[in-house]
Amino acid sequence: MTIRDELLQMGTRARQASRALARLSSGTKDSALLAMANGLEASKVELQEINRRDLDAGRKAGLSAAMIDRLTLTDGVIEGMAQGLREVAALPDPVGEVTRMWKRPNGLMVGKKRIPLGVIAMIYESRPNVTADAGGLCLKAGNAVILRGGHEALHSSVAIASVLERAGRQAGIPEGAIQVVGTTDRAAVGELLQMDRHIDLVIPRGGEGLIRFVTETSRIPVIQHFKGVCHVFVDASADLARAEAIVMNGKVQRPGVCNALETLLVHRDVADTFLPQVGRALTGAGVEIRGCPETLRRIDGAVAATDEDWDAEYLALILSVRVVDSLDGALDHIAAHGSLHTESIVTSDYASSQRFLDEVDASCVLVNASTRFNDGQQLGLGAEIGIATTKLHSYGPMGLEDLTTTKFIVYGQGQIRE
Amino acid sequence: MTIRDELLQMGTRARQASRALARLSSGTKDSALLAMANGLEASKVELQEINRRDLDAGRKAGLSAAMIDRLTLTDGVIEGMAQGLREVAALPDPVGEVTRMWKRPNGLMVGKKRIPLGVIAMIYESRPNVTADAGGLCLKAGNAVILRGGHEALHSSVAIASVLERAGRQAGIPEGAIQVVGTTDRAAVGELLQMDRHIDLVIPRGGEGLIRFVTETSRIPVIQHFKGVCHVFVDASADLARAEAIVMNGKVQRPGVCNALETLLVHRDVADTFLPQVGRALTGAGVEIRGCPETLRRIDGAVAATDEDWDAEYLALILSVRVVDSLDGALDHIAAHGSLHTESIVTSDYASSQRFLDEVDASCVLVNASTRFNDGQQLGLGAEIGIATTKLHSYGPMGLEDLTTTKFIVYGQGQIRE
Repeated sequence: MTIRDELLQMGTRARQASRALARLSSGTKDSALLAMANGLEASKVELQEINRRDLDAGRKAGLSAAMIDRLTLTDGVIEGMAQGLREVAALPDPVGEVTRMWKRPNGLMVGKKRIPLGVIAMIYESRPNVTADAGGLCLKAGNAVILRGGHEALHSSVAIASVLERAGRQAGIPEGAIQVVGTTDRAAVGELLQMDRHIDLVIPRGGEGLIRFVTETSRIPVIQHFKGVCHVFVDASADLARAEAIVMNGKVQRPGVCNALETLLVHRDVADTFLPQVGRALTGAGVEIRGCPETLRRIDGAVAATDEDWDAEYLALILSVRVVDSLDGALDHIAAHGSLHTESIVTSDYASSQRFLDEVDASCVLVNASTRFNDGQQLGLGAEIGIATTKLHSYGPMGLEDLTTTKFIVYGQGQIRE
Repeated sequence: MTIRDELLQMGTRARQASRALARLSSGTKDSALLAMANGLEASKVELQEINRRDLDAGRKAGLSAAMIDRLTLTDGVIEGMAQGLREVAALPDPVGEVTRMWKRPNGLMVGKKRIPLGVIAMIYESRPNVTADAGGLCLKAGNAVILRGGHEALHSSVAIASVLERAGRQAGIPEGAIQVVGTTDRAAVGELLQMDRHIDLVIPRGGEGLIRFVTETSRIPVIQHFKGVCHVFVDASADLARAEAIVMNGKVQRPGVCNALETLLVHRDVADTFLPQVGRALTGAGVEIRGCPETLRRIDGAVAATDEDWDAEYLALILSVRVVDSLDGALDHIAAHGSLHTESIVTSDYASSQRFLDEVDASCVLVNASTRFNDGQQLGLGAEIGIATTKLHSYGPMGLEDLTTTKFIVYGQGQIRE
């Protein structure tokens, strides 16, 4: 059987499973998620044994220590997957909600009812735990999922999926609900992305290269998440102690993630006070500062920023800093260099807060809070399948609801059109 | 200047305009829409003069009478465009609505705020009035629009757009808000569909061929609307007079549209009573009936349906008819042959109505009402930019809200992540 035929069979199984999944009760889905969590914990030894094969092959192939780290199914990672599944089970089921209903002049009652999307393909890189996290979220929202993980994690992903399948089947989940592409052949991704009759949505998770490739190749809609060049603007009226805490949290707490702070904008009126103060704190935390000329005069040890710095997603302890003349200057800078991801203002001025919220185009705009809050868990979505920085379907962190759509339902009493 | 450069310039102007449009007040947008309506009426003679050029060229090129008809800017068509713009002005502005807001345990107030999508490209066939209809809806939702109409309507579309531009500019609408691609070169569509940095959404309106071409070519998300193979299922418990009215309305009232009825499914228990009765009514209205063997025995003059009939979108006075054993039989038939468009059940049974609403996968599922109601106006969306039969972003008729997305807004008091 060719790879293409194999994938088409998976697609057909997924489509069939999705019809049954759409009708499952919340109780059945939640019991299955709990059974899957228990199954993962009960299979810990077996999973770690299989994981060792991926790790050995990875070491031989010269993977970096960081890659090996992400690949490893420690006790903590396995417990984390189980815990994640239990948390998803505890979330409300989005399927079946009638989000609105209204009455037409002719008496028709028209409503919008939440239904699953259908079949979702997840394409991700090395972390095998995405298999359980994504599988659980897709299941809860009533979707079938086809998972294609990094080839270096293949044995681990297949083993995790087969534990989920087994536990799910016993709990009443249809066959084909969670499937892993079991080949390392790179052509498989290309084939998968052509299957627009079998797959409704593709969610890639990984670096910008992966996302560009999937976007350019796919005939199926793709949730896109490019880079996060996140700004904090410290306004003239900002509480400077609060501003410092927000800047430090954005840059230092976890610099390697997409919602970390990359560029600080400071209103000229507070530059003399704020920049030396925040400069000391940042430098003390090991942050390299790349500044505009106005910044260099106020922060010891800062180096001159180049044009590229204003567009850089460092994902490291580096911060670009620029002094602006006004709120408008900050808005212009963000419009020119932002990545539609996360933008925050620190201010005590009502009008500035409202203008910033209104005028900044980003998936999440904050007032007096750290950029690090742009995350599905932190915003209260319960769990996150990804973040979209494009605007179709979803913009920003995506939770269970973003894995659904709505259909129109109409209750009539014999109405016909005149 | 090459076509590519010309389109890129249009894209850049549209992107700039979209930033200004997103911030316009509802009052400015509504005044502009009213000014545009007045402008169209005031330019009637001039528009009809220019339209004559397209008509003459069309007649020389041998366009069918139906095509010429759709191309003609009669007084009624021009008044219809003006009226459409006034109706859009009267609709509530979707932009700025905070659809929900909630409080996190750390005190953050998190909301979802409706914003425009950005830049929309409409690709449509011969009707020049789409220029005003789509332009008005996109403007009201705060989007810039690039319009590419049928080449046979080019002069008319450009003339309509320039009336809108002029009236809009005087009312405070930024330049570039509504633009028409001013070349008949077919390569222009291909180029447009690659401009994913300038355009956020493509909406094709036309035949299946156009939609397939756009879907396969585009690197930008596309709203897809394929065919409408719509069913009515007459359940065992149906009020048969009501069923007949719904069937006749679905098939006869306007057979050439996507929400017209194409296949009638009848429960075996009422086939003896209902089929002869509805058969006479249909035949009397000039409808050709293609039936299963059970139907042929009960309707005089019906011909045998082939396998292809069950998947056919006739868009004509033809109806396929099948007797099924049960609700499950109807659900299976619809799952196999439906087009995710519009499905209706006629029933007096509570459980049947609920199962049909739940289990049928279609953009609009109705109980005891004509399929002809699956339309943005009829469902109460106020106006319709298109119908989607795919599930991402929108499923079913799309109104103003479907031309927007939401961003997260967060009100904090200095919160940082632990």
